[in-house]
Amino acid sequence: MLAGGVGAARFLRGLARHTEPRDLTIIGNTADDEEFFGLHVSPDLDTVLYTLAGRAEPRRGWGLRGDTFACLRALGRLGAPTWFALGDRDLATHLVRTAWLRAGRPLSAVTAHLARRLGVRARLLPMTDDRVRTFVHAGGRRLPFQDYLVRRRARGRVARIEIAGAARARPAPGVLPALGRAEAIVIAPSNPLVSIGPMLAIPRLRRALERRRARAAAISPLVGGRPLKGPLDRMLRGLGHEVSPRGIARLYRGLVGTFVLDRTDTVWAPRVEALGLRVVLADTVMETPAHAARLAAAVLRALGEGPA
Amino acid sequence: MLAGGVGAARFLRGLARHTEPRDLTIIGNTADDEEFFGLHVSPDLDTVLYTLAGRAEPRRGWGLRGDTFACLRALGRLGAPTWFALGDRDLATHLVRTAWLRAGRPLSAVTAHLARRLGVRARLLPMTDDRVRTFVHAGGRRLPFQDYLVRRRARGRVARIEIAGAARARPAPGVLPALGRAEAIVIAPSNPLVSIGPMLAIPRLRRALERRRARAAAISPLVGGRPLKGPLDRMLRGLGHEVSPRGIARLYRGLVGTFVLDRTDTVWAPRVEALGLRVVLADTVMETPAHAARLAAAVLRALGEGPA
Repeated sequence: MLAGGVGAARFLRGLARHTEPRDLTIIGNTADDEEFFGLHVSPDLDTVLYTLAGRAEPRRGWGLRGDTFACLRALGRLGAPTWFALGDRDLATHLVRTAWLRAGRPLSAVTAHLARRLGVRARLLPMTDDRVRTFVHAGGRRLPFQDYLVRRRARGRVARIEIAGAARARPAPGVLPALGRAEAIVIAPSNPLVSIGPMLAIPRLRRALERRRARAAAISPLVGGRPLKGPLDRMLRGLGHEVSPRGIARLYRGLVGTFVLDRTDTVWAPRVEALGLRVVLADTVMETPAHAARLAAAVLRALGEGPA
Repeated sequence: MLAGGVGAARFLRGLARHTEPRDLTIIGNTADDEEFFGLHVSPDLDTVLYTLAGRAEPRRGWGLRGDTFACLRALGRLGAPTWFALGDRDLATHLVRTAWLRAGRPLSAVTAHLARRLGVRARLLPMTDDRVRTFVHAGGRRLPFQDYLVRRRARGRVARIEIAGAARARPAPGVLPALGRAEAIVIAPSNPLVSIGPMLAIPRLRRALERRRARAAAISPLVGGRPLKGPLDRMLRGLGHEVSPRGIARLYRGLVGTFVLDRTDTVWAPRVEALGLRVVLADTVMETPAHAARLAAAVLRALGEGPA
């Protein structure tokens, strides 16, 4: 599975019900990693990590369940910027990650260590150990992704999305073999531009996907033609893409053979099929893990790997 | 005032009752600063800082009152060493300090910022902005101070105390003017070897003290000939010093004109006077701020600055 943050985590809760942990590899986006107070924070990896550990905060979509924010409040009292909410327990993850990275270990090794300590048995791989960084050019500014999304609440017209460092980045150890061997490849219903896009911008990762597209499906992040949350529609519009399942499907053309469309978007099926993609209709809104499990079953079935 | 950690903080609660904040400068030991998870922790400065802010944990002698330890427990779950207890709110101090130091600001500027944000009006200066580091050679090992004191609980015979970097360190901005102008200089009842010792090992700071010794008093950290807490007696013994008020007074000879002795050690008065020091007898055990205030009044009176 190729995973961004929240949408991926929701789908994962369902996918995990139909796969053995040892058969499940998640490749996570790291282009929205950011430093806060000198700590290396990997928001997408952590959302997946906490979800796999069964410790994710279910409503917010980020952070640990039951976490407290005493440190953040104290940071505020000291005059530090607190627009990125770091929980007290969550901080431990960032402290350990940062210390290990500073000691020279690659992010993939650090991620594996964190996963092991949190009791996660599925494999979580960062897309790369190299530094790739998303900048959103919006409102006349070049903004690091978290700055754009969290601090400025995705305001301003998006003129460009820049995935700095991707062209020279190497997939992390394990990524290419996992894609090469996978019985099914699923692109989560994440933002195709800033969550999945950075992976596709890594040349060797993209080529590995292209070779396996017959085994690959992408789940549309649109429902009724619109994103459930986040600035995806504004981004698509700003960059001149159609805000529609077809607009999404065009971004994944050549990378997946199957496109999973929400039933509310059935009208778009023929237009997506016209792009040469097979369309699967399903309920993609995942209010509960049971919804997610049904969606995962449908996707796996379509790829010939699901429950009958 | 020259300050180490706990003993200094206790005395400070009393001294603050007899001085205007603007007339009070505290010079703090930084040689037991340590990095934990990449964070710069200044235990002695923080103990003084939190005391001046009225937010210190009164019994423990370190950390913030009412602090929680969610992050530390989470660090433990991730397999990180947790022998140095960092509270959630306390962490904010270290995160801000570390970020500012990395941005190139000197420790003195960072300390002034933290003090201002915590509402402290007295002036707290680190002894130096340069890196000075105490190593205790004990049990055949060369141990960074916190490692020796906290992690190994001060075990092992002390063969040597090394104040690395002191000979080349420059006093922080404000330190020499404060010593030069002070109406009274008080060396707190801290460990003379590892809390006050690092300041005395900075040549220009030592010379500034020597010049003002007529205005300076040291408070003996011994009561009934023994330290109230900590490994001072083992250190003195290991290094061949007498474990007695006279042994302490010898360490301060030439630096203070007045030596404050606990009444339980009255028998030592003539022997300390024989070193050329004036002796003041007082109750130096500070169970409450009221005790500390009485001690501070006695010391200031002896230096001609106290309440009549």
